[in-house]
Amino acid sequence: MDERVREHAEVLVDWSARVAAGDDVVVDVAEDAHELAVAVAEALGERGATVTTLYGSDEVSRAYLKGVEAATDEDGGFDRDDEDAGGATDPFGDEPAVDLALFEAADVYLRLGGGRNTTATADVPDPLRQAYATARTEVREARMDTDWVSTVHPTRSLAQQAGMAYEEYRAFAYDAILRDWEALAEEMAELKQLLDAGETVRLVTEREAAPDTDVTMSIAGRTAVNSAASVAYDSHNLPSGEVFTAPADTEGEVFFDVPMTIDSTRVRDVHLVFEDGEVVDVAAKAGEEALASILDTDPGARRLGELGIGMNRGIDRFTDSILFDEKMGDTVHMAVGRAYDACLPAGEPGNDSAVHVDLITDVSRNSRLEIDGKVVQRNGRFRWEDGFEA
Amino acid sequence: MDERVREHAEVLVDWSARVAAGDDVVVDVAEDAHELAVAVAEALGERGATVTTLYGSDEVSRAYLKGVEAATDEDGGFDRDDEDAGGATDPFGDEPAVDLALFEAADVYLRLGGGRNTTATADVPDPLRQAYATARTEVREARMDTDWVSTVHPTRSLAQQAGMAYEEYRAFAYDAILRDWEALAEEMAELKQLLDAGETVRLVTEREAAPDTDVTMSIAGRTAVNSAASVAYDSHNLPSGEVFTAPADTEGEVFFDVPMTIDSTRVRDVHLVFEDGEVVDVAAKAGEEALASILDTDPGARRLGELGIGMNRGIDRFTDSILFDEKMGDTVHMAVGRAYDACLPAGEPGNDSAVHVDLITDVSRNSRLEIDGKVVQRNGRFRWEDGFEA
Repeated sequence: MDERVREHAEVLVDWSARVAAGDDVVVDVAEDAHELAVAVAEALGERGATVTTLYGSDEVSRAYLKGVEAATDEDGGFDRDDEDAGGATDPFGDEPAVDLALFEAADVYLRLGGGRNTTATADVPDPLRQAYATARTEVREARMDTDWVSTVHPTRSLAQQAGMAYEEYRAFAYDAILRDWEALAEEMAELKQLLDAGETVRLVTEREAAPDTDVTMSIAGRTAVNSAASVAYDSHNLPSGEVFTAPADTEGEVFFDVPMTIDSTRVRDVHLVFEDGEVVDVAAKAGEEALASILDTDPGARRLGELGIGMNRGIDRFTDSILFDEKMGDTVHMAVGRAYDACLPAGEPGNDSAVHVDLITDVSRNSRLEIDGKVVQRNGRFRWEDGFEA
Repeated sequence: MDERVREHAEVLVDWSARVAAGDDVVVDVAEDAHELAVAVAEALGERGATVTTLYGSDEVSRAYLKGVEAATDEDGGFDRDDEDAGGATDPFGDEPAVDLALFEAADVYLRLGGGRNTTATADVPDPLRQAYATARTEVREARMDTDWVSTVHPTRSLAQQAGMAYEEYRAFAYDAILRDWEALAEEMAELKQLLDAGETVRLVTEREAAPDTDVTMSIAGRTAVNSAASVAYDSHNLPSGEVFTAPADTEGEVFFDVPMTIDSTRVRDVHLVFEDGEVVDVAAKAGEEALASILDTDPGARRLGELGIGMNRGIDRFTDSILFDEKMGDTVHMAVGRAYDACLPAGEPGNDSAVHVDLITDVSRNSRLEIDGKVVQRNGRFRWEDGFEA
C-alpha cells in the first residue's frame, strides 16, 4: 500500500475525527475507496474503536431511486398490486428506521468518497432526488450530530473530473490532505478573529469580460469557523483550510467564475442578484435550470447560508470538486441554503433549508475583501502577508 | 446488465426474503458483488422498501483485526498511551452499539457474498477471530432475528476457488440459484415428513481406500426444515435445496470426503469419532489443527447441531463453497456447533455454540440412509425416485 494512503487514514482518524478507544465509528465507503477503507479500518482497530462499514455507492443509490420511480404512478403514489401498500402511498412515507438507528448509535461518521463515475446519478429526476433528501432529513440530522468527517480517496474518476492523469491527481490530492494542519489552523485564526469582531463584509471584483461582483452582507453576531479539518475546530472536511461564517441580509451581485458540477449537472459562470437577502435573479452560461430548481427547493434555498474564504495553498488548481475547490487559497465561496449551527449564537436559528450549494469566485486578481470598510485581502494577499497593499 | 443478475435479485427479494412495502432492508455487499447490489437495490425501490447498504469486505475486516492485534499486549489488553483506555482493556469489551442498533431496526438482511479473495483473512490468528465472534454474539442474534438470506454473486475469486473458468462458473451458479423453487419445495416436503416422524437416523457408507462411515443419531421430537431458499420455509440460503434437522446423541464414525475451505484453511478427508454425542477423535489429511481448534471453541462445538441432506440437482459438482456444496444432490452434511431454532420444540434449547461448521460426505455410491431402520436413500436415489432399491 502507498504510504500516503496510510498517512491519509491517520490524519483522518487522529487529527480530523479525534477517535478514542471505545468510539463507535461508521465508515461509509464509496465504490473505489476500498484501499483507504482498509487503512482506516486498521487505524480504528489500533485505537480500540468499533467499526461498521457502509457501502456508499452512487450506482446503488441511483438503482434504488430508479426502482422507486418505476413503481410510482402519476399521483406520486405507489402503483403496485401489493395490498399492504394500500394503493397510492408516499414512496418515502416510512421513516428510514435502520439509517436513523445506526447514526443515532454512532459516535463518529467517516465518509470516504471516491466512486467510479461522478455523474452516476445524472438521470435521477430532480423532484425525486429532492423528495428523497427531504424524507431523510432526520437521518441527515442524526449523522451531523456525530463527529463526522468527509474525505475522498483519489480515484481515476476524480482524476478525470479534474482533467488530470491519475498519478498527477493523486499527488495533487495528497498535497491538499497531508498538510501541517496545526500551522494552518494558527494562520486561519487571524482571519477568524477579524470576522468575529466585524459587522459587515463586502466583496468587490472587477472582470474584463464578465459582470463585476459587488456584494455586501451582515455578519454581526455570527461566529466564524476556523475550518482546520478537525471536529475539534467544528470542521468536517479533509482537506479543509477555509474560514467560514453565516451571513445575513445580502445585497448586491456576485459573479461566480469557477466552473463546477452540482448534482451531476455542469454549472458555469453563475451570476446572482440579491435584494433584501434573497436571490431575485439567476443567470448562468451552463446549468441555469438546475440552479433555478435548487433555489425553489424551499424558502431558505434563496438565501445565503455560508460565506467562506479559501486558505489552503496546497490546492493550486480547480478540479471540479467542491471539497477541494472551495478550500483553495485566493478564492471566496458562498452557499445558498442551510447555515452551519457552529456559526450561530446559541438559540438563534440561522438560515434553514434542505439544500446547501456552494458557488466559488476567484479573488486572485482585481479583487478586495473588506470587513467594516477595511481591506483585509486584496488580489489574494491577506493583510498579514508580504506584498499586501491596503 | 446480464439478465441473470436481475433474475437473481428478483428471486432473492421476492421468493427468498418476501420483501413487502415498508420493510427496512439491510444489504451487505461483498467487494465484488456490486452488480448484484445494483439489481437488488432497484428491486427494493420497486417494492417500496427502504435500503441500507453495508460494505462486507473481508479485507477491511482483516485490516481491523490486524489493527486490534497490533495494539493488544501479551495479556490480551490494549497496549496504548491513551488514558481513556485505562490501561489493559479487552479490545472487544465494548458492545458494538452501531451494529446492534442497525440489526435490531432491520426487518430483512440480505448478504451478497462475492469477494476478491476467499482467503483474505488467512493471517488472522484463530484466537483473535474467535474472540471477535464471541464479542459479537448479540449482533449475530439480532441479525438472525431478521428475515435474513445469504447468497453470492458469482465472482472470479469464487470461480478460482471452484477451479473453473469465470463464464463456466457463472453458468454453474445461476443453474443452482435460478430453479423452480416451488417444485423443489414439494419434493423436499416428502423427506421432511419422514424425518419429522422418525426417531433415529443411521448413515452408512463404504469406501475402498478410506474409513467407512457408520453413524447413528436421535432426531426424536425434532422438526426438519424444508430448506427451499425462502424465509417462508425457515430457509436462509440462496441457493438452498436441502432438508435439515437438529440431531442429538450421535454415536459412531463419519468420513467426510468432500474437500472444503473453513475460515481460510483447506480441510480434506476428515474422520470424526463420536461417543455419547461428542467428538472424541478427529483426524484429517489437511486442516486437522484448525478443526481441532474449532472443536475447542466451547462445549457445544464438539456436538452436532445439524444433519442435512442435499437435494439441489442444479448443483452438479463440488466448488469448495459451503453455500453450494452442502445443497448438492447425493450428499449428506453434518455441522458441529450451533443448532437452528427452527428444528427444536418450543422452549427446548438445542445445541448451543459460537460456531457452526459443516462437513460433507458424498453418498452417490455405496451408501444408505436409514430412518428407524428403513432405507430412504440408497446410492443417492430416494425411495420416491425411479431406480431406488430398497
